[in-house]
Amino acid sequence: MTDLGAVIQVIAFDIFGTTVDWHTGVTEQVAAEARRQGVDLDAARFADDWRGRYLPSMERVNTGAAEWAHLDALHRKSLDELLAERGVAAAFDDAARRRLVHAWHRLPNWDDAAAGLARLRDRYVAAALSNGGFALLTHLVKAAALPFDCILSAELAHAYKPAPEPYLTTARLLDVRPDQVLMVACHRWDLDGARGAGLRTAFVERPGEKGPHRTADRAEEVTADLHATSFTDLADRLGC
Amino acid sequence: MTDLGAVIQVIAFDIFGTTVDWHTGVTEQVAAEARRQGVDLDAARFADDWRGRYLPSMERVNTGAAEWAHLDALHRKSLDELLAERGVAAAFDDAARRRLVHAWHRLPNWDDAAAGLARLRDRYVAAALSNGGFALLTHLVKAAALPFDCILSAELAHAYKPAPEPYLTTARLLDVRPDQVLMVACHRWDLDGARGAGLRTAFVERPGEKGPHRTADRAEEVTADLHATSFTDLADRLGC
Repeated sequence: MTDLGAVIQVIAFDIFGTTVDWHTGVTEQVAAEARRQGVDLDAARFADDWRGRYLPSMERVNTGAAEWAHLDALHRKSLDELLAERGVAAAFDDAARRRLVHAWHRLPNWDDAAAGLARLRDRYVAAALSNGGFALLTHLVKAAALPFDCILSAELAHAYKPAPEPYLTTARLLDVRPDQVLMVACHRWDLDGARGAGLRTAFVERPGEKGPHRTADRAEEVTADLHATSFTDLADRLGC
Repeated sequence: MTDLGAVIQVIAFDIFGTTVDWHTGVTEQVAAEARRQGVDLDAARFADDWRGRYLPSMERVNTGAAEWAHLDALHRKSLDELLAERGVAAAFDDAARRRLVHAWHRLPNWDDAAAGLARLRDRYVAAALSNGGFALLTHLVKAAALPFDCILSAELAHAYKPAPEPYLTTARLLDVRPDQVLMVACHRWDLDGARGAGLRTAFVERPGEKGPHRTADRAEEVTADLHATSFTDLADRLGC
């Protein structure tokens, strides 16, 4: 991996699932809000179904079927639909729904994330690159004390990953060539998008990222320049 | 100042002069480069004249007289002009000129900057908001170990301060109203621009920011919601 480590200058990290444990964080906050409203809800399944609407909602933006909208707005729309389908719409007023949308703004790190980032950042520019909005990411990274050098967001490109624009915007804003950027993610679709835009790719396997009921992407199914099991393993492999 | 501290959610910090000592940093790097080339140059005066072309070059962009260009490109153009005027153009090849343009990417902090920022950041979102490009700012903030929550740049708005766009882009990306952003700068023109865009303003006096030969803006000449003598003084005044 010496060659790769010498070519890249920027490491762009996906956030939901890759850097933070969205499933645990959202499940806990949905469960707490349901208790507050006195509603019986399988919070883990609810989190699964909510996240399940994530890619289709962004796909509609990328294909032009829907106008650009913040991830917060997409989350709110899919939340409204899910609550109605569960037959519990009446139990969650606007304030409760806002709190739920904000669950995605405060999520727990994976154990290795901050330590691995700190090592990688010593040699490379470490950027957060997520489909989350700029404000969401700034708040999440701050609350989680993740040592990124800068926040980037699909919002800056007005297109969502895996469309090429967010990846190319990252290279342009950081004044490097696309192949000098290493995209780190636990999702095949993200790395396929990054590679299509000319970036280098690193898969970090996060077996628990989709919770107990669904299967995360596995290393053997994913094409990438580098495979790692954690951010600290990635730092090892890049010699940081 | 209790009211102001309760209203604002974001503090946006100007960088050159306000957070870092551009005059000392650029002077030292110009002097080193001139020595390397065997050229006799008054580095402090050269830094003054180079910086003196800063506002006019951005004004041409803001009025539409020139296309959008990165600060690096504007610095290079004014550097080329200055070297020609000094009669030393032949002594500085392309590589030397690139190094000089990069002098603006690595500048020393004012002594109070990191400590004040750390305190202010505990309560507010702390953003770098400069006319420097996104890459320049990311490198500068990283090298100087300044604890910002995010990097913003006039580049994201394709307009330079004091035009309203960079200030309004800051509020929009961080999902707050303009009057929830406090702009911190040592330049009257910056605070006038911020106020015109609806932001709140704090003047930090930096008597040495223009070096020994020119006079910095003084508190009594500047209209602002708050006046401070350092970032730690600003933290005191906001009760952080």
